[in-house]
Amino acid sequence: VALPITFLSDYGYDDEFAGVCRAVIARITPDVTVIDLTHGIARHDVAGGALVLAATLPYTPAGVHLGVVDPGVGSPRRALAVRVAREERILVGPDNGLLWPAIERFGGPVEAVDVSLSSFRLEPISATFHGRDIFAPVAANLARGAVLREAGESVDPSRLERLERPPARLEAGVVSARVVRIDRFGNAILGLAETDVHGTGLMLGHEITIEAASGSREAIYARAFAEVPEGKPLVYLDS
Amino acid sequence: VALPITFLSDYGYDDEFAGVCRAVIARITPDVTVIDLTHGIARHDVAGGALVLAATLPYTPAGVHLGVVDPGVGSPRRALAVRVAREERILVGPDNGLLWPAIERFGGPVEAVDVSLSSFRLEPISATFHGRDIFAPVAANLARGAVLREAGESVDPSRLERLERPPARLEAGVVSARVVRIDRFGNAILGLAETDVHGTGLMLGHEITIEAASGSREAIYARAFAEVPEGKPLVYLDS
Amino acid sequence: VALPITFLSDYGYDDEFAGVCRAVIARITPDVTVIDLTHGIARHDVAGGALVLAATLPYTPAGVHLGVVDPGVGSPRRALAVRVAREERILVGPDNGLLWPAIERFGGPVEAVDVSLSSFRLEPISATFHGRDIFAPVAANLARGAVLREAGESVDPSRLERLERPPARLEAGVVSARVVRIDRFGNAILGLAETDVHGTGLMLGHEITIEAASGSREAIYARAFAEVPEGKPLVYLDS
Repeated sequence: VALPITFLSDYGYDDEFAGVCRAVIARITPDVTVIDLTHGIARHDVAGGALVLAATLPYTPAGVHLGVVDPGVGSPRRALAVRVAREERILVGPDNGLLWPAIERFGGPVEAVDVSLSSFRLEPISATFHGRDIFAPVAANLARGAVLREAGESVDPSRLERLERPPARLEAGVVSARVVRIDRFGNAILGLAETDVHGTGLMLGHEITIEAASGSREAIYARAFAEVPEGKPLVYLDS
Repeated sequence: VALPITFLSDYGYDDEFAGVCRAVIARITPDVTVIDLTHGIARHDVAGGALVLAATLPYTPAGVHLGVVDPGVGSPRRALAVRVAREERILVGPDNGLLWPAIERFGGPVEAVDVSLSSFRLEPISATFHGRDIFAPVAANLARGAVLREAGESVDPSRLERLERPPARLEAGVVSARVVRIDRFGNAILGLAETDVHGTGLMLGHEITIEAASGSREAIYARAFAEVPEGKPLVYLDS
Repeated sequence: VALPITFLSDYGYDDEFAGVCRAVIARITPDVTVIDLTHGIARHDVAGGALVLAATLPYTPAGVHLGVVDPGVGSPRRALAVRVAREERILVGPDNGLLWPAIERFGGPVEAVDVSLSSFRLEPISATFHGRDIFAPVAANLARGAVLREAGESVDPSRLERLERPPARLEAGVVSARVVRIDRFGNAILGLAETDVHGTGLMLGHEITIEAASGSREAIYARAFAEVPEGKPLVYLDS
């Protein structure tokens, strides 16, 4: 039975891009389960897509993880399939940092191939739609059981494109962090990791100052909306 | 084989919220079919979501029906799984009225459990994303055959949160009704039930006045657009 | 095992229309795979939907292809299921030209039925939602193996509604073409076919003038963004 495929992109919903990729997958591996994580990543927002991919993968079944946010399509950037250290997971997407935080979250890369010239790719290959012509068919073939080295040319897993986390600091009650995105419910996601908070002495109930590019705000470090007065901003650790 | 799950929410498509819930379901019950009804319910619009859920469920296969429009997440509102009288259907969602019109449509509740502390929930549980941490895993476990009492603590099914239908009247040729929502095609959905119309003497072809908060309009009671002159509003009974 | 169904519409994502159609399909044919191509076709844009359908179908598995962009719902336009000459594909949708370019792409129609009064349709049938009440149940029954003549009344396949391609010319280095749509990435899709280009002497690297309703622009005929200077428009053949 085929491995499940998760799929994240910046393709949006108005066009057929994500749908065609799913169709390509279904032609190759008819019995596969494809789980759309979202196709609503902001256009070409590699950092935003990377953050969402790393945050969601721990909730997904192990399998093949397809991610396409690819402003460099048509340029010589590599196209990757990467096996990680923990759990049986393979990530497929452009070598532009999109996959990196998720790869790190699962212990780092242990094997990687460049799939730009994969024998699994569709011909003729387009210059602009590698999701359909390279990434989807590679993911579909890996999901049906192909091994990584069949999918492309071996590359050094220690030399993948990485993504610098936006600089963040938390000291003396002041958080300096970038607002990475704002979700549908108005939550501002900060580029701040749990490890930035540990060891700073920050405790629940403390008031801190958030300094973002858009200005600074006072907020309470809390666990839930109900723990702060109505109208008062809070900061909490999400997943 | 797993029961199908239908899924409705106000999570939208730009974020990964609905996708993560589907991933959680797939981890627990890999062979399940999940049918997204829509994730486009207006943010926190419990009444709108309730209307859509009740209108669509008769078209869905019997199974588990997951609905999440949950402005009170993090507050002490209960989280429910409810078995209804007619057909083998279980509804899962917050106890805020969202599920109520659908429950009524299938003969009312016959068994209910509070799943807030369900043994099926994910740990650590977040304060703000119960769709992922409570509702999705409960739905997935019910779909794979768990019985209701395994999913949570029994509650009195006669004491679920209900949803008052918006007041509507039809008399002397005047309809007074709330516009519940306006769909993509410009149709205004009125908070008016078939039972409000029965026995009023209203017949096809009659002209009636619709009084909504936004003003009043003349319209013809008809079955199809082709039955009224172009540009003339009509009122018709939908499903 | 059921044939896969692809599904394209202008239903959007905010309403439950596409979701209900999927639910109807799942009730009839529980084991079917439904591939949403997109539901983001502009409202009532038959020509735009037709273009996307014809462009995507070659990437989809053979099966049943459901397309609903139906401004004439409720009028006497026919509702069709059409078998094409090449590959085992059946298209289902309104007889308004939406299906035509895709039908042509697979060698033309060889058998067609009017499904308006199909025995597979849901009762009572609504005047405005034939996607749910006619097209989805017909598609689901065809996917589970019903033959075309069970689905409706035979009609002359040579008399289906056709869609005129928008006029396009390429001569003396000037392309005259309609901009059919603009995608999420800002690409303007021209109503210009590969056959319009063949035999004109146009070669890669040539500069041409595009005349659209919105004005004229110089562009280079190329294969990829990287082949032209940054900021310079290019024209390329997509799939």
